[in-house]
Amino acid sequence: MATLGAEMVHVATGEVDIALPFSERLTQQDGYLHAGVVAGVVDSACGYAALTTMDAGAEVLTVEFKINLLAPAAGERLVARGRVLRTGRTLTVCRGDAFTIDDGREKHVATLTTTMMARVAGPAGRDIAEPS
Amino acid sequence: MATLGAEMVHVATGEVDIALPFSERLTQQDGYLHAGVVAGVVDSACGYAALTTMDAGAEVLTVEFKINLLAPAAGERLVARGRVLRTGRTLTVCRGDAFTIDDGREKHVATLTTTMMARVAGPAGRDIAEPS
Amino acid sequence: MATLGAEMVHVATGEVDIALPFSERLTQQDGYLHAGVVAGVVDSACGYAALTTMDAGAEVLTVEFKINLLAPAAGERLVARGRVLRTGRTLTVCRGDAFTIDDGREKHVATLTTTMMARVAGPAGRDIAEPS
Amino acid sequence: MATLGAEMVHVATGEVDIALPFSERLTQQDGYLHAGVVAGVVDSACGYAALTTMDAGAEVLTVEFKINLLAPAAGERLVARGRVLRTGRTLTVCRGDAFTIDDGREKHVATLTTTMMARVAGPAGRDIAEPS
Repeated sequence: MATLGAEMVHVATGEVDIALPFSERLTQQDGYLHAGVVAGVVDSACGYAALTTMDAGAEVLTVEFKINLLAPAAGERLVARGRVLRTGRTLTVCRGDAFTIDDGREKHVATLTTTMMARVAGPAGRDIAEPS
Repeated sequence: MATLGAEMVHVATGEVDIALPFSERLTQQDGYLHAGVVAGVVDSACGYAALTTMDAGAEVLTVEFKINLLAPAAGERLVARGRVLRTGRTLTVCRGDAFTIDDGREKHVATLTTTMMARVAGPAGRDIAEPS
Repeated sequence: MATLGAEMVHVATGEVDIALPFSERLTQQDGYLHAGVVAGVVDSACGYAALTTMDAGAEVLTVEFKINLLAPAAGERLVARGRVLRTGRTLTVCRGDAFTIDDGREKHVATLTTTMMARVAGPAGRDIAEPS
Repeated sequence: MATLGAEMVHVATGEVDIALPFSERLTQQDGYLHAGVVAGVVDSACGYAALTTMDAGAEVLTVEFKINLLAPAAGERLVARGRVLRTGRTLTVCRGDAFTIDDGREKHVATLTTTMMARVAGPAGRDIAEPS
């Protein structure tokens, strides 16, 4: 995320907001952010939001996400808001929304839902990656 | 895509494969590709696959996509295969799969489905981006 | 919907709520509503919500939906709330949430996002169903 | 499923096909199967396919699914094919496709991806339903 110039602008239990200033490097020829970049930032906001509800030392893996693109992401800044909808023993479900800020006006550009999985870090850690 | 070092390695009607060499810039601290990067590459393969079925001059917009991450994306190279499932007047539905290549062995790391929308380019072009 | 015993309990522009009383016929051996039933009811609430924003005579088709099941749907009644997130010329994006009501207490059991397509009814109507 | 008149017509490890004859009770005024019914049948085919890869006594819960409707489901019979894409310790990812059979011709009407969770049955069973 740091590579992209993103920063967390709000952190609370079950809530993380990430802001990303637009840059030429991230936009396509039409000035819009690529769908993968928008998805990646909202997914990250959701992942960090999920982390705020987990034990220290836990890591979070994205199991799946789905994004609906509501409008092209153009402007000065993208804000992604990740919110935990449900915390379980193994799985956490989050909703994330992306807004562009342009000249002080906010526009809803994407909505995402995701399933996250908690993984206890460590050499013995087994996770979704492992053959079963 | 070029910024990422990606290249098209297969193009046929309704089919596009994109290969992406791993680089430090794209991977996280654990050596895995970020979910947003995997999603972006598979979404692009699907978008180009959709384009092969459209009239010249058409552009393609991602309406939505959903990705299931099956295993961490680690290795030397990621190959994303976009395939058109259905072409309609307005909407095209594609499936995309991502595989990592490591030491000659292929591993299925993600599967994605997406709805794409054709947009005729030009100043009068109205699309999903427009205020309704 | 009528077959299921469902009824609309709230209608406003961009908003429809549907209530469904639990019945033996709809539940599985464990007393829970089948995921398909929950999905169908929330999808319907979204479809009717989309209809409230369209011209008279329009019909609505579900292009895709995704549902995350947050908890088993058990109780006396299911309430599905469909809300329009974005209205476009061709596509409408909605969010829907399902809650069970049990002994006066509400529980969030599912969240859904969907893309709907407007179709003008009539013999000349061409839609997603047609071969392209 | 039995209530709907559905039956399993193919079972192998990681594979289950379910066939559903059309009936007036299941179709809408236009003769098409409701999206929720199609989704429910494909989700069931995936759930049973997941079960074939699990230990005896295991139960399977749908965590999430996403369906793209490719064409209206009209005809004599619907066949849903559930296939396991990945089996993990906790989660199983499946793909399901629905086809209508009309006058001997098969038409691809829907594609679905889903995450399933194994649950060991029993009084001590804790699952996605539980408060965490």
